[in-house]
Amino acid sequence: MDSERMLQRLGQDPFARYLGIELLALDEGYSKATMVVAEHMLNLHGIPHGGVIFSLADAAFAAASNSHGQVAVALNVSINYLAAVPAGTRLYAEASEESLGRRIALYRMSVTAEDGTLVALCQGTVYRKNQPIELDAAEG
Amino acid sequence: MDSERMLQRLGQDPFARYLGIELLALDEGYSKATMVVAEHMLNLHGIPHGGVIFSLADAAFAAASNSHGQVAVALNVSINYLAAVPAGTRLYAEASEESLGRRIALYRMSVTAEDGTLVALCQGTVYRKNQPIELDAAEG
Amino acid sequence: MDSERMLQRLGQDPFARYLGIELLALDEGYSKATMVVAEHMLNLHGIPHGGVIFSLADAAFAAASNSHGQVAVALNVSINYLAAVPAGTRLYAEASEESLGRRIALYRMSVTAEDGTLVALCQGTVYRKNQPIELDAAEG
Amino acid sequence: MDSERMLQRLGQDPFARYLGIELLALDEGYSKATMVVAEHMLNLHGIPHGGVIFSLADAAFAAASNSHGQVAVALNVSINYLAAVPAGTRLYAEASEESLGRRIALYRMSVTAEDGTLVALCQGTVYRKNQPIELDAAEG
Repeated sequence: MDSERMLQRLGQDPFARYLGIELLALDEGYSKATMVVAEHMLNLHGIPHGGVIFSLADAAFAAASNSHGQVAVALNVSINYLAAVPAGTRLYAEASEESLGRRIALYRMSVTAEDGTLVALCQGTVYRKNQPIELDAAEG
Repeated sequence: MDSERMLQRLGQDPFARYLGIELLALDEGYSKATMVVAEHMLNLHGIPHGGVIFSLADAAFAAASNSHGQVAVALNVSINYLAAVPAGTRLYAEASEESLGRRIALYRMSVTAEDGTLVALCQGTVYRKNQPIELDAAEG
Repeated sequence: MDSERMLQRLGQDPFARYLGIELLALDEGYSKATMVVAEHMLNLHGIPHGGVIFSLADAAFAAASNSHGQVAVALNVSINYLAAVPAGTRLYAEASEESLGRRIALYRMSVTAEDGTLVALCQGTVYRKNQPIELDAAEG
Repeated sequence: MDSERMLQRLGQDPFARYLGIELLALDEGYSKATMVVAEHMLNLHGIPHGGVIFSLADAAFAAASNSHGQVAVALNVSINYLAAVPAGTRLYAEASEESLGRRIALYRMSVTAEDGTLVALCQGTVYRKNQPIELDAAEG
């Protein structure tokens, strides 16, 4: 894997960029991403929307599961919410590979606040296609 | 429940509004929401980002689980992705109550495309607090 | 599908038989199973062990997901416990297909008591192998 | 916590004993259990039944989540199956606490074979009741 080009390629996810998610680190089966919870990312109760926390974890999940250079699509993800944080908080998500099969792989994602508070834990399963990630798309 | 005021109140979720999610229907233990998948909501592979599908389901989940007028916060959600749809597709999410306890309640969410394709299925659990939803906040 | 032979074949699961689980009905993508909660199937708190409720749901899941005559192995299952029942209660589990792909399929399982109480709800995903179920094994 | 008495008490789960599950270690928020997969614990495909793997993980989950001396009941558990093992294999399950709230706590369970193969990973959530574990029941 050409890590630099892969990081650049996987960091170009449109929705992740729309939310201000930045891919900080990428290795085979691992990734780390960050974002700041903006005011417009809160929910009814004034805490970060479940979809925002999930999206950050999902961005790390996508990067880690596609890091081998083979297209991986999510089959399912479960998320457990553990703590709420105020708007303005910087969050970090880390995804690590628990199991890597030819077709199926499993990842664990943690979302933590800048002060170390554990915000959410997720597990996600992907199906790995017989299809390489096209790096050139990153340069188009 | 004053359904009109509750629908208005639950429809004011900031992040749901940011994504263009509209709350179409609300009843006790039930809700229906909709959105259109925009270009900036795609992922690396050019299909709707998992976080977008999740956020729509989550918006319906939040509305249905808070529909009894008592604050409900999500403990966990699992999502299964079943089909991908192109940008521009209108999606609908429906949330229905599977079980309602004093403290814990369970919901099932389906996300379908306008042509009826089943896009995702979710299950979500909430913890119900001893705290009423403040309707007045909707009028502030 | 030769339903009779398939029902007979899928009903021969050793562990399901050990627990007294009986396969009542089988159709493509559907099954129904039953068992009685014995005294030795309780947990610390005197209610049915989570593993017992799960095993009944899992037996229905296995039958429904293998009903197409192609070997299906479970990738993951999530279970939500909704009510406890006393020892001696007859339980029923029904599995129904939510989505059937070439490789991946999703099932929903409900476990109910004889009086209709909803005891648990599950979702399970299988990977479908390029391998037929051997019916002859049922006659050995 | 009187660890010895608690270990003895939590090790008396009837269904766990029926399956030959032994509680090896117990600490606050942690437990380790073991069992051997017998011939009658296989499924249709000749590999350990999902319910058996689950039950071992669940036994560790129950011990860890009740280890604080306060009754904890499972709300939901998700299990990911990663590898199959032959009959006769000794399995180990470890449960560790990910998050402990007043009412809600989250645990992670791993199931491994004697040779270190990772067989399954689970996440489980409990609801903690205002009710102590009765230790005396262990001496009756």
